Amino acid sequence: MVDPISFGIIGGDKRQVFLANSLLSDGVPVLACGFERLKGAAFFSGVEQRPLAETAERAGVLLLPLPATRDGKTLNAPFAQAPIRLDEAFAKALLGHRVLAGKAAALKDACPALRELPIADYGARESFARQNAAITAEGALFYALRAMDKSLCGSRCLVAGFGRVGQAVAVRLYHLFARVTVAARREASRAAAAALGCRTVSTADLYRGGAYDLVINTVPALLFPRAVLEKFPKTCIFLDLSSAPGGIDLAAAESLHLHAEQAFSLPGKTAPRAAAESIKQSVYSILKGCEES
Amino acid sequence: MVDPISFGIIGGDKRQVFLANSLLSDGVPVLACGFERLKGAAFFSGVEQRPLAETAERAGVLLLPLPATRDGKTLNAPFAQAPIRLDEAFAKALLGHRVLAGKAAALKDACPALRELPIADYGARESFARQNAAITAEGALFYALRAMDKSLCGSRCLVAGFGRVGQAVAVRLYHLFARVTVAARREASRAAAAALGCRTVSTADLYRGGAYDLVINTVPALLFPRAVLEKFPKTCIFLDLSSAPGGIDLAAAESLHLHAEQAFSLPGKTAPRAAAESIKQSVYSILKGCEES
Amino acid sequence: MVDPISFGIIGGDKRQVFLANSLLSDGVPVLACGFERLKGAAFFSGVEQRPLAETAERAGVLLLPLPATRDGKTLNAPFAQAPIRLDEAFAKALLGHRVLAGKAAALKDACPALRELPIADYGARESFARQNAAITAEGALFYALRAMDKSLCGSRCLVAGFGRVGQAVAVRLYHLFARVTVAARREASRAAAAALGCRTVSTADLYRGGAYDLVINTVPALLFPRAVLEKFPKTCIFLDLSSAPGGIDLAAAESLHLHAEQAFSLPGKTAPRAAAESIKQSVYSILKGCEES
Amino acid sequence: MVDPISFGIIGGDKRQVFLANSLLSDGVPVLACGFERLKGAAFFSGVEQRPLAETAERAGVLLLPLPATRDGKTLNAPFAQAPIRLDEAFAKALLGHRVLAGKAAALKDACPALRELPIADYGARESFARQNAAITAEGALFYALRAMDKSLCGSRCLVAGFGRVGQAVAVRLYHLFARVTVAARREASRAAAAALGCRTVSTADLYRGGAYDLVINTVPALLFPRAVLEKFPKTCIFLDLSSAPGGIDLAAAESLHLHAEQAFSLPGKTAPRAAAESIKQSVYSILKGCEES
Repeated sequence: MVDPISFGIIGGDKRQVFLANSLLSDGVPVLACGFERLKGAAFFSGVEQRPLAETAERAGVLLLPLPATRDGKTLNAPFAQAPIRLDEAFAKALLGHRVLAGKAAALKDACPALRELPIADYGARESFARQNAAITAEGALFYALRAMDKSLCGSRCLVAGFGRVGQAVAVRLYHLFARVTVAARREASRAAAAALGCRTVSTADLYRGGAYDLVINTVPALLFPRAVLEKFPKTCIFLDLSSAPGGIDLAAAESLHLHAEQAFSLPGKTAPRAAAESIKQSVYSILKGCEES
Repeated sequence: MVDPISFGIIGGDKRQVFLANSLLSDGVPVLACGFERLKGAAFFSGVEQRPLAETAERAGVLLLPLPATRDGKTLNAPFAQAPIRLDEAFAKALLGHRVLAGKAAALKDACPALRELPIADYGARESFARQNAAITAEGALFYALRAMDKSLCGSRCLVAGFGRVGQAVAVRLYHLFARVTVAARREASRAAAAALGCRTVSTADLYRGGAYDLVINTVPALLFPRAVLEKFPKTCIFLDLSSAPGGIDLAAAESLHLHAEQAFSLPGKTAPRAAAESIKQSVYSILKGCEES
Repeated sequence: MVDPISFGIIGGDKRQVFLANSLLSDGVPVLACGFERLKGAAFFSGVEQRPLAETAERAGVLLLPLPATRDGKTLNAPFAQAPIRLDEAFAKALLGHRVLAGKAAALKDACPALRELPIADYGARESFARQNAAITAEGALFYALRAMDKSLCGSRCLVAGFGRVGQAVAVRLYHLFARVTVAARREASRAAAAALGCRTVSTADLYRGGAYDLVINTVPALLFPRAVLEKFPKTCIFLDLSSAPGGIDLAAAESLHLHAEQAFSLPGKTAPRAAAESIKQSVYSILKGCEES
Repeated sequence: MVDPISFGIIGGDKRQVFLANSLLSDGVPVLACGFERLKGAAFFSGVEQRPLAETAERAGVLLLPLPATRDGKTLNAPFAQAPIRLDEAFAKALLGHRVLAGKAAALKDACPALRELPIADYGARESFARQNAAITAEGALFYALRAMDKSLCGSRCLVAGFGRVGQAVAVRLYHLFARVTVAARREASRAAAAALGCRTVSTADLYRGGAYDLVINTVPALLFPRAVLEKFPKTCIFLDLSSAPGGIDLAAAESLHLHAEQAFSLPGKTAPRAAAESIKQSVYSILKGCEES
């Protein structure tokens, strides 16, 4: 594994809590900050909760969340007592330390004082992204099963986008016996979807709607504005997995009495332990100096 | 379809509400009783809610719920204002009418005055049971995804029982990339499970436990008493799909700090519309006089 | 395993050769007769080839092939130098010995002198039938891939019959991304097929034909006479897995220039080792006195 | 479709024959050369077989095979009466025409006089490659089923390489209930394979061998020299799908009495019609001026 160092977990959601416990179980000391409002005894007893400055100073490697920031101003730390501003003080605490973060580029945009600090992005590794897509797809199944009053078996499902998450979702729906159509812009994506048993449609033809029971969007572009939503049945369920601001006009969906919901940051909500294990593997690979070939 | 008759829906859960609406949409008049506490406008406006006596008298075919009774004393009518006793008055209302019910035998045991009335059991048809198993298996996936903090992909799952529901669950878990083991008493069931990619274990060997992440029981016998539960990891999730009293000792599980839950009457909770369509098909087949061959 | 007895393998195809070797590998002495024309060194060196009388006399358990007879007159022994008549001499050799056979009833019909001898049918066990269906389905895939110039992925396949073999074939085609339709007589079979992602059609409607690329018949009844075959495209491939005389009129198919072929005794041809292992398990279970429950 | 032009098919295997017929069926005139030794009436009657010069002169678009050359000296034309040299005369016939070919770069290396001619590569399109991988994977199943005497169900399979073909093969084996291990060099490929239910091993660890029943290689590098082959069971089947010279030392395999075979140019052999349709779609997309985005 890694050298006997210590980790400082700064901010994040339940994934980072599982991450802290998992690192500790590997025999590495772990400090944490930004989890003051976490209820109950979620951290294993050996995890030391300390203020930012102390955490940064004592820990060998600092782990920021994925994404490190959602609003471009504060650290992504939903369990923190008070918002952790990405200001000079924050930068000063980190400078000189080894730092890993998810979506590091946005963090540096938000905090120019960090620009010179090399920050490895554990969310950018291809192997992490593959695992994350699988976990996200399972989360999408959970949302779909919760929202639908029909069965997936025999239902007509539309998956918009055929990137990693779209693929993982479409494959699962197919093998759960749904009739799956994939909407993709690229001819090659449609060919790949057809080779996995899916019908296909060009994204440009989405405006025609269709007799679907379930629509899952994975594309971060407004593919489902009001004019498109109007072409779908009233009983169709819409799930948006794309990152904010998302690809489905939720306000329009509501006014059309369609069931539409965002399922942002899925792995953190539905399978935090699995997501934490993926993060840990990515962190270890970076620390071992593995180049992704 | 069927002759232009009318239906009286007496008691039941959300499945019967969807059933009423679906029958009405087919152009058949529908009366309903036993849904006084149903919130909102769940019934389509054409469904007439009437007292038991009027419903029975005016409707050509009376549809009781599945199961018709859970406690052996009252009708299974969770939305009724007051319990509907299976007494002489109830029997008197039904006698002379065409009645269909789920688990009709238990109804007759509970209400001897109904013994002479021929009651067709729409839940006993093999085709219904197959559809119901598929819908139930999807409900089990929902419960599993909700309870687990790991991902199904790569997890070690044990499915106890390989009847219709067990098969439907095991197949889905396999194709969602879990490592599936099937526990079955019969050698033939284990052979069938192996032919679908599953590892197998004899039910007699369950007492040895195993390193599972998820256990789904479908057998209505106490396969998981305390002594067996103790042999499973603390992080294992237990779901019981079998009918009451179930096959997992929930009290023991709680005292062992295991996550265990019953998922009774699954189709009614997780996919009432799909379940209602299955009931409707079964009802129509019975009314058309289709023998199951 | 079994007691340290010896086996006598009398007749059969390559499955029995693999069976002999596998039994020998388990440490049990094996004699064989009826394999004089077998080319090369197929038997392991420890297997003793002896005449019928000696084999029967010396071996503790006699294993006849599956099926024991195809023509009702001779033993099913394609590698025998001369046909082995099911006559008095044959019966006399067997009487007083422990005998296991496949399709024992047809053997007794063919050889009345054997009627009083208890002959266990290793092919009749449900667990064997399940394994055999899986192996047969793989053989059907082989025949389909060999005959088709299209790809299975995206092709339209019709599977007639939804018994064990039909199910195993349909499931495999579905998960290889074909569009599968199942033709079945029973409503319950059609419901089961639909719950596995297949379209369905009643057997009674086969006469309408359809735009299929591949038809696989598993029903031992003439479902595809000339009048039905005429309704299918000229490019459609027909495979008949049912036992002789089969369900497809091959002569009519030929005159219609359709590609149709029988794929009888599939496991023996395409996966004899797997089939032999299934037989061995079934034989061992019988010898251990396992009742199938 | 395309403008009413004409096609000249020059060389190639059965795929090009199906391609010619399919283009003709779309209403486009087709000439062909290099098929003199083709037995029977494989071309539809409207396809005109003409010498190279006439074909090139009269046809609007010239289609060379995939790959255009195998030996770097002659056109890939297995049905030609005499080898078609890639010499000045060949170049002269083509110059000034619109030419499409598979693996165009190798053609230009072999025939410098063609270097200035723009030759579109219909085999290089991502959508074509995806379809081709699916068809190739089915061909691999055919070879595997033919070679194995065990069943795929329950067997232990190793797939070396996780590019398009490796993925398509592994997915199919998994859903046919094999235990699949993927050997890949890249950590990201192994993560992707694990997310599809496969075990994984680093290519660097192949030298350890393993208890496999089937090995399918898709990597064009010598992953299986003698020293590696020696570590596998004698009953293991080896298939090499990689392009020549392949990744398995066949001579070493033979001397080790292992069953090993090359399955080069699979789609052309096992599913020429499907392969031809893929080529046609790619050709049409190029002629319509579709950029692959």
